[in-house]
Amino acid sequence: MSEKTADKSRNPIGWGYHEDRLTEAERTPLIQAMQAFLGGEDWQPRAAPAVDDIPLAEARIATPKSLADIVASDHETRLLHAVGRSFRDLAGLRSGAEIAAPDAVARPQNQHQLVDVLAWASDAGYAIVPFGGGSSVVGGVNPEGLERWPGVVTVDMAGLDRVHEIDTRDRVVHAQGGIFGPALDAALKPEGLAVRHYPQSYFHSTLGGWVVTRGAGHFSTLHAKIEDRVQALSVLLPDGRNVTTRALPASSVGIDPNRLWCGSEGALGIVTDVRLRVVSDPAHKDGVSVAFDDFESALEATRAIVQAGIWPAQMRVLDPFEHLISTAMSGRMGEGALMILGFEGERPVDHQKAAALEVAQAHGGTPRPRSDESSGDWRDTFFRQPYLRDALMDYAVIADTFETAVPWSRVPAFYHAVRDATQQAVENICGNGGVTCRVTHAYPDGVALYFSFYGRGDHDALVEQWHQIKTAASDAVMAGGGTISHHHAMGRDHKPWAKQELPDAFRGAIRGAKAEVDPNGQMNPGLWFAD
Amino acid sequence: MSEKTADKSRNPIGWGYHEDRLTEAERTPLIQAMQAFLGGEDWQPRAAPAVDDIPLAEARIATPKSLADIVASDHETRLLHAVGRSFRDLAGLRSGAEIAAPDAVARPQNQHQLVDVLAWASDAGYAIVPFGGGSSVVGGVNPEGLERWPGVVTVDMAGLDRVHEIDTRDRVVHAQGGIFGPALDAALKPEGLAVRHYPQSYFHSTLGGWVVTRGAGHFSTLHAKIEDRVQALSVLLPDGRNVTTRALPASSVGIDPNRLWCGSEGALGIVTDVRLRVVSDPAHKDGVSVAFDDFESALEATRAIVQAGIWPAQMRVLDPFEHLISTAMSGRMGEGALMILGFEGERPVDHQKAAALEVAQAHGGTPRPRSDESSGDWRDTFFRQPYLRDALMDYAVIADTFETAVPWSRVPAFYHAVRDATQQAVENICGNGGVTCRVTHAYPDGVALYFSFYGRGDHDALVEQWHQIKTAASDAVMAGGGTISHHHAMGRDHKPWAKQELPDAFRGAIRGAKAEVDPNGQMNPGLWFAD
Repeated sequence: MSEKTADKSRNPIGWGYHEDRLTEAERTPLIQAMQAFLGGEDWQPRAAPAVDDIPLAEARIATPKSLADIVASDHETRLLHAVGRSFRDLAGLRSGAEIAAPDAVARPQNQHQLVDVLAWASDAGYAIVPFGGGSSVVGGVNPEGLERWPGVVTVDMAGLDRVHEIDTRDRVVHAQGGIFGPALDAALKPEGLAVRHYPQSYFHSTLGGWVVTRGAGHFSTLHAKIEDRVQALSVLLPDGRNVTTRALPASSVGIDPNRLWCGSEGALGIVTDVRLRVVSDPAHKDGVSVAFDDFESALEATRAIVQAGIWPAQMRVLDPFEHLISTAMSGRMGEGALMILGFEGERPVDHQKAAALEVAQAHGGTPRPRSDESSGDWRDTFFRQPYLRDALMDYAVIADTFETAVPWSRVPAFYHAVRDATQQAVENICGNGGVTCRVTHAYPDGVALYFSFYGRGDHDALVEQWHQIKTAASDAVMAGGGTISHHHAMGRDHKPWAKQELPDAFRGAIRGAKAEVDPNGQMNPGLWFAD
Repeated sequence: MSEKTADKSRNPIGWGYHEDRLTEAERTPLIQAMQAFLGGEDWQPRAAPAVDDIPLAEARIATPKSLADIVASDHETRLLHAVGRSFRDLAGLRSGAEIAAPDAVARPQNQHQLVDVLAWASDAGYAIVPFGGGSSVVGGVNPEGLERWPGVVTVDMAGLDRVHEIDTRDRVVHAQGGIFGPALDAALKPEGLAVRHYPQSYFHSTLGGWVVTRGAGHFSTLHAKIEDRVQALSVLLPDGRNVTTRALPASSVGIDPNRLWCGSEGALGIVTDVRLRVVSDPAHKDGVSVAFDDFESALEATRAIVQAGIWPAQMRVLDPFEHLISTAMSGRMGEGALMILGFEGERPVDHQKAAALEVAQAHGGTPRPRSDESSGDWRDTFFRQPYLRDALMDYAVIADTFETAVPWSRVPAFYHAVRDATQQAVENICGNGGVTCRVTHAYPDGVALYFSFYGRGDHDALVEQWHQIKTAASDAVMAGGGTISHHHAMGRDHKPWAKQELPDAFRGAIRGAKAEVDPNGQMNPGLWFAD
């Protein structure tokens, strides 16, 4: 990883670190290429507003003296915690509309302070929004319904970033929820262990955030989802009760308690500590690309590989348009679909690689020399992508992604239907534009598809235009039998579709559970089971 | 599998099928060997009582005429559904004590009848006990607190055994919850698929039962637990509402709804249908045994194999005493610990076998020719074991098993502590006896240990004597940091320890969820979250 995290500051109006915004040398060819593709005149940038110029709802909370050191309500701090990092969030900051911000932001530095903060906010009847890295792209940290609460307090967990224990026998790390990806890996490295969980937000998200959003990471097969890695966890409830589950490899004693908090998105208390299963820092790595004439053949090969139990660590598959785009900047102009395979492990991976290639070739694939996409460079590109989105936003380009998962039996019809519906929406809204797709994760019974779309909007209507495209895409995902999110979580943006996806009685059951652990409904209110 | 299921009848007072009880030729050497080991005089059998002589609490329910065809309250039907198949259950039937039986047993033959049954029982305010194969060894189907209900209706799901669909692309079978293991496999076989999930109760338990008890099966590594196989499910609530989750390979839309019903043990409604992930009927199989000087070395080898990502389909490890016992009947007298490895899959398993052997040898293991234990014979023995327990019960031998899972970091101290506490309890109660242990499942962060114990009790005190040993063993499991069950579920027998194992606030949360889906608390009352 090329990024350094020290001495960098969170960009208050964009993805990631302020210091990592695109350089002019990166920006110019990107904009030129996009302009060439999308056409149109008047490609004048409009800069994001200055932080101080973004209007926030007025803060209503008086901080108690005892918490003065860790609770702030200045404009910039509130702005930094008002939204996540979705296209909607960042376009919203540029829109001139008043932003619903927390009235105060608490930054506890230890469990004791966290208990104090929750006691204060809970007793005062405030809404409480847990905040990890704030990288949500689904509205997971955005205060909602301010008028229903006398105050909203966002609890920034970044100060609770201690590693309690690394168990090299169990290959488990026990750490506080506020630790970020790189710090967790830095602690594991001397022990020969690694997380090997790289969401695109790896540098900007926390262990606790991963767990409560059921994120997926590095691995395309086996243990891709964080919930499969959670051995145990601790949760702090608003009334100060601590819930700690027993550290176990598996159990059959009733319902699994860990799974109630995986995906709870802060609404059932704050996940303060996690025992996470990690792996040995891989001694062996290899990668290869395989070209296919079309996406359908590549999908069939993907299915065959994962159903055969080969389990490549990484298996990304680019549809022809995504392949073209991903190579266009380097002038190579890739044709057809591309499968990018990565293998890693404690033991040699040659046999696994040979097996995957054999299956891929049997499905019409042609091995290619290891390309950028199958090397470490691909990962840098991966982490870099959200910064490109921000640069394009200056030019009113609506560039966003959405992702889903669906059983194999619905593929490729699902792919075509969702792509076409999104393309149509982009064209309706923007005149023209593009939609690309890649496989990010694969399972024996289905596949996760990750779509990107872009078109040029109007500087003054980005949020509404984005919303129309997002709605068309999400409706197609639902109609096709997919999930509204495979690894970005539900948040507030996905609520309409989550309510379709999840049975009513289940939503009722979770409301019932919430009433027991958060009787006043103060924890991150407004999610899918709220009504 | 050697057993046939057609034309066999459930043994009302013992494990499995009446017709499969031990033959005299099997029984005699077993009893002789046990007598030689345990010593003592007076090895006179006492036969189990006749069905009609077992006293049941009086039936209190008048069956409505509309349900007369599917609701019964005769003595034998009620007895067949009064208990599961634990040692406590079967010893209880012999004790002369009155058995808490359901007042009526409903046997719906389709979903429509099931809805009618639930409407009747729900409206009348009866307790409702879902019943799959009735093979629970933890008190999962035993009516409890009869006096608190005007009636208890057990709902036998065996009539709902339809296979709706087999999706060969997704490798998913969609079937009703009442289907038994062999019928499910029979339906899959022509499609080239198989469940490859063999709990010891395979012939006597249902798909729905597997799911609500979070059972484990065939595979020792990867996807051993049924909850990892559930793609989607349908649940019928007592008020007639149907809950069907969306069929997805994975999702991040809040809390996973499937996981609320996995392990719910009938208390959150009846799981009527399951979409289960299955596998290809394995084209390649191989097996090998590896001898170790001691259990500790074998455990380290087990850990190393699974942490290296080798994933043998089966990896059982017998401690020296279990190894000795398992070979004694054949006169071979195995020494040291024995690891039994099985490999299977769609692709050749040679490489996987070689890798596992390499790691095992690096940990001091010596490969052995494929023995009984690593061949199909082992499976027959495995399915046969509960019948041995029944035969021994005639001679007042308390022979039972319990199983747990624990992180690697607690092994081998945990093994010694639990074994010693159990051995001590057996000796205190029975004078002498034995305790053996095997690894049944292995995970990167821990291991499932399966203990067997036996000693000779008194015909007139078997339940109480068993309970004392079970309590000592369970206390040791809890004190050592294990789970009270890795794959037998919680039931009523494990309730005291489940309450220690699971956080209070989590129990409260599940109570809250239950209040929403079962507001009158009628579904299988008395489990761990009940109070």
